[in-house]
Amino acid sequence: MTRQVVFSPSGRRGAFPEGTTVLDAARALGVDLDSVCGGRGICGRCQVVIGSRPGVEARADRLSEPGPTETDYQGRRPLGQGHRLGCAARIVEDVVIDVPPDSQVHRQVVRKRAGVAALPVDPVVRLHYVEVPEPDLASPTGDLERLLGALEQEWGLGGLVVDPPVLRILQATLRQGGWAVTVAVRQGRDLFGIWPGFRDLALGVAFDVGSTTIAGHLCDLLTGAVLATNGAMNPQIGFGEDLMSRVSYVMMNQDGASRLTEVVRGALDELLGELVTEAAVDRGDVLELSLVGNPIMHHLVLGLDPRELGTAPFALATTSALDTPASELGLHAHGGARVYSLPCVAGHVGADAAGAVLSEGPHRGVRLQLLVDVGTNAELVLGNHDRLLAASSPTGPAFEGAQISSGQRAAPGAIERVRVDRSTLHPRFSVIGQDVWSDEAGFDFGAVTGICGSGIIEAIAELHLAGVVDTDGVIRPPIEPSSRVVASDRTYSYVLCSEPLIEVTQNDVRAVQLAKAALHAGARLLMDHYGVEQVDEIRLAGAFGSHIDPLYAMVLGMIPDCDLEQVSAAGNAAGVGAMMALLSGVARTEIEEVARVIEKVETAVEPRFQEHFVAALAIPHKTDPYPLLSELVELPPRPQPGERRRRRSD
Amino acid sequence: MTRQVVFSPSGRRGAFPEGTTVLDAARALGVDLDSVCGGRGICGRCQVVIGSRPGVEARADRLSEPGPTETDYQGRRPLGQGHRLGCAARIVEDVVIDVPPDSQVHRQVVRKRAGVAALPVDPVVRLHYVEVPEPDLASPTGDLERLLGALEQEWGLGGLVVDPPVLRILQATLRQGGWAVTVAVRQGRDLFGIWPGFRDLALGVAFDVGSTTIAGHLCDLLTGAVLATNGAMNPQIGFGEDLMSRVSYVMMNQDGASRLTEVVRGALDELLGELVTEAAVDRGDVLELSLVGNPIMHHLVLGLDPRELGTAPFALATTSALDTPASELGLHAHGGARVYSLPCVAGHVGADAAGAVLSEGPHRGVRLQLLVDVGTNAELVLGNHDRLLAASSPTGPAFEGAQISSGQRAAPGAIERVRVDRSTLHPRFSVIGQDVWSDEAGFDFGAVTGICGSGIIEAIAELHLAGVVDTDGVIRPPIEPSSRVVASDRTYSYVLCSEPLIEVTQNDVRAVQLAKAALHAGARLLMDHYGVEQVDEIRLAGAFGSHIDPLYAMVLGMIPDCDLEQVSAAGNAAGVGAMMALLSGVARTEIEEVARVIEKVETAVEPRFQEHFVAALAIPHKTDPYPLLSELVELPPRPQPGERRRRRSD
Repeated sequence: MTRQVVFSPSGRRGAFPEGTTVLDAARALGVDLDSVCGGRGICGRCQVVIGSRPGVEARADRLSEPGPTETDYQGRRPLGQGHRLGCAARIVEDVVIDVPPDSQVHRQVVRKRAGVAALPVDPVVRLHYVEVPEPDLASPTGDLERLLGALEQEWGLGGLVVDPPVLRILQATLRQGGWAVTVAVRQGRDLFGIWPGFRDLALGVAFDVGSTTIAGHLCDLLTGAVLATNGAMNPQIGFGEDLMSRVSYVMMNQDGASRLTEVVRGALDELLGELVTEAAVDRGDVLELSLVGNPIMHHLVLGLDPRELGTAPFALATTSALDTPASELGLHAHGGARVYSLPCVAGHVGADAAGAVLSEGPHRGVRLQLLVDVGTNAELVLGNHDRLLAASSPTGPAFEGAQISSGQRAAPGAIERVRVDRSTLHPRFSVIGQDVWSDEAGFDFGAVTGICGSGIIEAIAELHLAGVVDTDGVIRPPIEPSSRVVASDRTYSYVLCSEPLIEVTQNDVRAVQLAKAALHAGARLLMDHYGVEQVDEIRLAGAFGSHIDPLYAMVLGMIPDCDLEQVSAAGNAAGVGAMMALLSGVARTEIEEVARVIEKVETAVEPRFQEHFVAALAIPHKTDPYPLLSELVELPPRPQPGERRRRRSD
Repeated sequence: MTRQVVFSPSGRRGAFPEGTTVLDAARALGVDLDSVCGGRGICGRCQVVIGSRPGVEARADRLSEPGPTETDYQGRRPLGQGHRLGCAARIVEDVVIDVPPDSQVHRQVVRKRAGVAALPVDPVVRLHYVEVPEPDLASPTGDLERLLGALEQEWGLGGLVVDPPVLRILQATLRQGGWAVTVAVRQGRDLFGIWPGFRDLALGVAFDVGSTTIAGHLCDLLTGAVLATNGAMNPQIGFGEDLMSRVSYVMMNQDGASRLTEVVRGALDELLGELVTEAAVDRGDVLELSLVGNPIMHHLVLGLDPRELGTAPFALATTSALDTPASELGLHAHGGARVYSLPCVAGHVGADAAGAVLSEGPHRGVRLQLLVDVGTNAELVLGNHDRLLAASSPTGPAFEGAQISSGQRAAPGAIERVRVDRSTLHPRFSVIGQDVWSDEAGFDFGAVTGICGSGIIEAIAELHLAGVVDTDGVIRPPIEPSSRVVASDRTYSYVLCSEPLIEVTQNDVRAVQLAKAALHAGARLLMDHYGVEQVDEIRLAGAFGSHIDPLYAMVLGMIPDCDLEQVSAAGNAAGVGAMMALLSGVARTEIEEVARVIEKVETAVEPRFQEHFVAALAIPHKTDPYPLLSELVELPPRPQPGERRRRRSD
């Protein structure tokens, strides 16, 4: 007697003899129904719910009554209301079977902590429980061959390659588990872990290695859940604040590269330890890792010499994604764990940019997206599903608060938001670490220490809107003299705070102009190559991108003119990309393919870059009137051709 | 204008435009013509000779005149008379091209030192010289990607996997070699070595790990030449003379297995050092290694626990051939070198037996071969191209001189050859380390220390032929009393040497009877399974097999009756098999396939083994009259059924 079975949401259907288990029917139809224990009622991953469709209502008796397997399982773990174990429940009548997302191998996981709506979960590492025949004097096969035979028969895993350390513990593990073990297999090919009996714990760590900070995310590879997130300072800062000073250190010191490699690996391993402690798991539970970073961080973590990245032609050792044993990188995880490093795009567009692309997915849509990640170099990606272009632009460290008279890193005490009264020119500002603005009660001026990147951007943009900084970037005294604009040598400065003294000097404006012109020119060059005058969307990635106000970025002309509602922070896009690659083999294939076809535009060899750079020195731009922006704010009039400019010497 | 080209010995032919190089024509036709440098006139591996066939005589001007490439080459290395570089010589007229064996990638190499006529050379490791495009600012690809692109374009090597250490030296090596490097690739897949510029040195070491001694052979992977051969004692002897006592040591001591592993690996690494010193090369030149050994040595070298091999069901950790990084085995060769261990056949039939099978090749012929390797266990293989059977038989250590009253290892001072005068019963014997026999002038009786395995076999066989030892193995006093046969308790002993006293006691005969009966019964069991009464050929492998005289082995009934001319020593067959696997990927595939289909016969569970064992206790055998042997020697009459046996107590 056969019964009709329809699986939802796949819609796959077939006829099966009465008494067939739901899991067997799902396997026969190729339905995506998970299982670690292979249908033994242990893992609980094959849970299903009886569904309905016209003519086939959801009646519990369409499946066999729960038997001892399900009762036993419920004694150990909760089984949701109406949930049945697919491996135990047998088909009794025609039935519709709903496979909930948690029971699918390939699924989207919704999460909050990582700053992204949903991540595909499809890990390259899978666990397989298997029962192995005991050795038999009459048929002398090796333990390994019996294990491999059982894995092939039960899981269809043929041609597995076995890590030597697995072989060394194989005999003892088989006997300890009473000839039942769980193995970890990577890419359906490498058998690299083995445990006695049943086990369903497989964790992964995604690392985002920045020049300043390192972030780590501990994830459950089977569910996609983020179990812990933590950060640490990159101890390489002791060898140089910015990237180029670290490359210089390597050039000057014979063991420079290996020392920088050693300290950053040490920090990663320490962070790994903190993550597993926070989640109350073991280092040995971490079976897979992923890594993003700019090209120099990428090279140093992998033990590759970064010197070539310091001079033209900025040749990377490799642009490919790599799989490196964690042990070779000094990371103490499971002995067979590997580190997947995302591909690099070009000499200054690294695995961090690849991670951001994977996370933001400009290549997945039709809208033309400009993805900007600002650091000492701005990494820029422009495109959509038709075509992707990438470039890096030498912004220098001004946006990080360096080269600014009162500049500092974004840390407590730094001015981060600035408003300037258009008529009185009086400022108000907020500081990292204080909840109130400077004109509100309780503000502590004594705790003000300097101004960070987002603060200087807002200050200059506000001064431009107030008419103090002209379109050429010159600080000009107002017609009504103001105590705020003071002469200093042959130029003027704006006094943002008098006690302590925090000024915006003419040199500060020049430094920001140079940085923002480089950024704008890079974006403009990509637009030229793509053949467009405008982009549909701008995403600002990274910590700096999260801090700056899109409005002021546009008033300053850092980014091209764009509908302000389409300019937004992308959060830690590189780190999210690392997590996506950690959790999904499909995501890895995707970013490897995308990285290969991204067209690299080298700003240093493009004459047009210099032209764009010069035009972009103006605020917001020499030739582009920023029509979309002009609808929102009243930009100061531009000097007309021939108009004589007032200087202090006038 | 096209010209006809015929290659010999392949017979491949084709038409090519005048001016095509011989190498290009060979590649187009798939002719087996070697090259490391890729046709740049550096390596000299593509040497060819102008040949002839009817209508196309061997005229030098059928190829272009030697140009600067060949002149330059001859300035560096000799070019044989009439030899041309295939990459430089261009086709001018119709021509026959002879490819000499040395210019073929797949070839047979004739050698003397290894005790085998010819070895196929077809190494899994190959060197490839390649010129890599320099990095270019306008087209930012990684160094690795440019190297891989060049290897794919020039050598057709696609999808290469790169060892992380190669990546770490890649940048410096490319620049040091002026963008020309030689890479080492294993199995056409793993890029594991890189050197600046051109290089054609690739060495390998084959290890044969015996319980007592370890042998190593250093070979040139490109030519197949043996550069050095050396041996060492297995230092595990300090933990137990025979295999079972070492397994006992492991069972008794918690770190026993790791200590035994450590000392044997240390000995292998030391031997490796001696081999490279002898050949005046570096450890880093050794790119590939191979390994044979009995199952317990195999497990201990690989770091696998051998305890399971000490008790039924004698389960191996694995029977498969393995590729293990040399560094994981504590062997200091090239950092990317790997150790290929041959497959094991069964719990007591190890990688050494697989090596012997590969070397002796019973599966390659139609004659039914019995391959015997005697140690504490005798490993037996019987078969031909139709079918192969294997078994091990518990001979015990008697053949190694243990359990014998005056027994000792085959070492200086040990009696190794014995003759007994049929009428006087006077013995003469020879001793290891002395050139003369005991009845010749200059023999030094003071240097006699004991009797080794081959000596006791000859002594008992000669005593049987002289009528002193009867077919039941009883030492009987002759009818004419002799000072040589002396009473001892309730039995008799034969005095082989009086000063020092070396006797053959009744217990000695019993010990040898037990050992030889086990060996014979094992062989007989395999013959039963095959369904034959006689074998065509017997090969005696290993050191013991080389020492014993086939005639006496047969008189004693150690081996089944056979045409004596078809019984011979196989030399160090296991070690030769290791060398074959070192030098040839085809040989590896061959032995892996053969090992999978060998039928294992477990003596311990076969009731017939006991029957055969009892019948084989008689000398030479209780029921088998040894007709072929009887044509050569006069065997003493067997006791007729019912004949009353004389005992000392008679």
